[in-house]
Amino acid sequence: MLEITDVTLTPLQRIPVAGGDVLHAMKTTDPGFSGFGEAYFSTVEPGAVKAWKRHRRITLNLVAPIGVVRVVIHDDRLGSPTCGVFTQVLLSTESYCRLTVPPMLWVGFQGLGDITAMLLNVANMVHDPAEIDRRRIEAFSFDWSEVR
Amino acid sequence: MLEITDVTLTPLQRIPVAGGDVLHAMKTTDPGFSGFGEAYFSTVEPGAVKAWKRHRRITLNLVAPIGVVRVVIHDDRLGSPTCGVFTQVLLSTESYCRLTVPPMLWVGFQGLGDITAMLLNVANMVHDPAEIDRRRIEAFSFDWSEVR
Repeated sequence: MLEITDVTLTPLQRIPVAGGDVLHAMKTTDPGFSGFGEAYFSTVEPGAVKAWKRHRRITLNLVAPIGVVRVVIHDDRLGSPTCGVFTQVLLSTESYCRLTVPPMLWVGFQGLGDITAMLLNVANMVHDPAEIDRRRIEAFSFDWSEVR
Repeated sequence: MLEITDVTLTPLQRIPVAGGDVLHAMKTTDPGFSGFGEAYFSTVEPGAVKAWKRHRRITLNLVAPIGVVRVVIHDDRLGSPTCGVFTQVLLSTESYCRLTVPPMLWVGFQGLGDITAMLLNVANMVHDPAEIDRRRIEAFSFDWSEVR
C-alpha cells in the first residue's frame, strides 16, 4: 500500500485508562523522529480535499486522533525509484498509526466520514511559508472520488 | 483565575483555511516550551474525573482540540507563595489556549459537555512512570460537582 520509498507507517498504542484512554503520538525515541520544531492541528471537513502541498525541508509526522483522513502522497522526485507513483493511507484511531512523510513529496488530504477530522502534525521545524510549494488539485491526475 | 504561581495560559491561534482550519499547539519559540520529549493524547469521557496526578520532573503543555476539559491544579509545594491554593481552567477550542503546568503540582481533569474530550500534552520528557505520583480523588477536598 505505501509504495513510495521513505514514507513509513508506524503503529501506535492506545492505552486503556479509566475515565479516558491515552493515545500515543510521538516520542523522541520513536521511528520517524527527526527533531521537534512545531506541533499543530490541521482539520479536514467531511468530503473536503486539501491538495496539493509540498514541504521542501519539513518531515511530517501525521496522526489522526479524531475522524478519518485519507492522505494521498505523490512522488515526482527525479531519480526516485518510485517517481510517478501515488499512494494513499487512511488515518484514524482504527488501526491507529503515525505516517511519516519526508520532504519533497506532494501531499493531499481528504476528510472521510461524517465529522470534521483532525490531524496532528509533529514537524521537525517551525512553520515557514518559504519552504512550502502549492499546486492546484488539478495539477496531478488523481481520482479523489474513488476511495481505497 | 490562574492563581498558582508558575502556571501560565497562552492564547493560541486558529487559522481559517478552506476545507478545514489550522490550530496551533506548540512551537519551540513559544512561551512554556522547555524541550520536547513526547506528544500524546489523553481523552476524558463526559463527566469523568481523572485525579490526582503529579509529575516530579515533566512540564505539561496542554491543549484541548476536541471537547471541553476542566483542568484543576492544586499547589501543596512547601514554601510556594500559593501553597494550599486550587485553581481551574476550562480548555477547549473556544478561547483556545495552551496551559503550561510546571512539575510538582497536582493536576486533575474532568470531561465537560457531551462528547469525549481530548487533551494534547507536549511534554519535555518521554513518559516515565517513576516520575509520576498519584493520589485518590478524595486526597484533596475539591468539589468537582461545582463548575466555575
